[in-house]
Amino acid sequence: MAIEFKPIGYVHTEAQVVPRHWSVSQVEGRLVIDPQYQEGLKDIKPGQQIVVLFHFHRSPPFAPANLIQKPPHREARLGVFSTCSPRRPNPLGLSVVEVLAIQGNTITVKGIDMVDGTPILDLKPLVTDYQPDQPALESPA
Amino acid sequence: MAIEFKPIGYVHTEAQVVPRHWSVSQVEGRLVIDPQYQEGLKDIKPGQQIVVLFHFHRSPPFAPANLIQKPPHREARLGVFSTCSPRRPNPLGLSVVEVLAIQGNTITVKGIDMVDGTPILDLKPLVTDYQPDQPALESPA
Repeated sequence: MAIEFKPIGYVHTEAQVVPRHWSVSQVEGRLVIDPQYQEGLKDIKPGQQIVVLFHFHRSPPFAPANLIQKPPHREARLGVFSTCSPRRPNPLGLSVVEVLAIQGNTITVKGIDMVDGTPILDLKPLVTDYQPDQPALESPA
Repeated sequence: MAIEFKPIGYVHTEAQVVPRHWSVSQVEGRLVIDPQYQEGLKDIKPGQQIVVLFHFHRSPPFAPANLIQKPPHREARLGVFSTCSPRRPNPLGLSVVEVLAIQGNTITVKGIDMVDGTPILDLKPLVTDYQPDQPALESPA
């Protein structure tokens, strides 16, 4: 069963090289979102960190040999699901970036580790902790 | 341009109701991964938190009226990209779960907010912070 997604926008950056991971990146760039979704950006504010899900559109097809990989900054050979490698069964990327400015359908951010032209699939608020004081509001499964 | 993904496995839980978000969930369940990817799980250990990317397979198609939504636990009407709503342009979900056990291709976890049968698209290590002491190891964009 194939699941189809379409880009909601694209990453733009002038950087010719990008760091291996958002957590070590100070690179700036822009997330340019399709104008049809602009209204959905209204609560994204400068200073926030947001999650960007994107397509590793340049990754070669995944092969069984990629199940174990040595990340460039580690000595160990790790299972692919314990790495952030772009070469994974579904080439889905996740970065956390800091919003510097937002104007219309363009979000200027810091923390870019995607190459120029990367298709964006989703933006989400960053939630990092268990929040026992918040209501769970269960719904039928 | 459509981007195609395939499930790498499925979420299983006996829970009849699930909390609205992983950050308020103590619900347990299992992530059963396709055996062809089992080797890639070798470094996932009990006690770790991992990121699960999944398909909101029950969401109705996104419509422009969903660009602004009122989350069940909030008073405000928010832009969709500032919510974790399952009704979003690309129905991609992100949960952080705690690994309780792993055996073969089955990961037992706590923090389930997905319904039974949810297709899993990716598993990633949880990285939450800027890490200025780690090497950036830039690569050509």
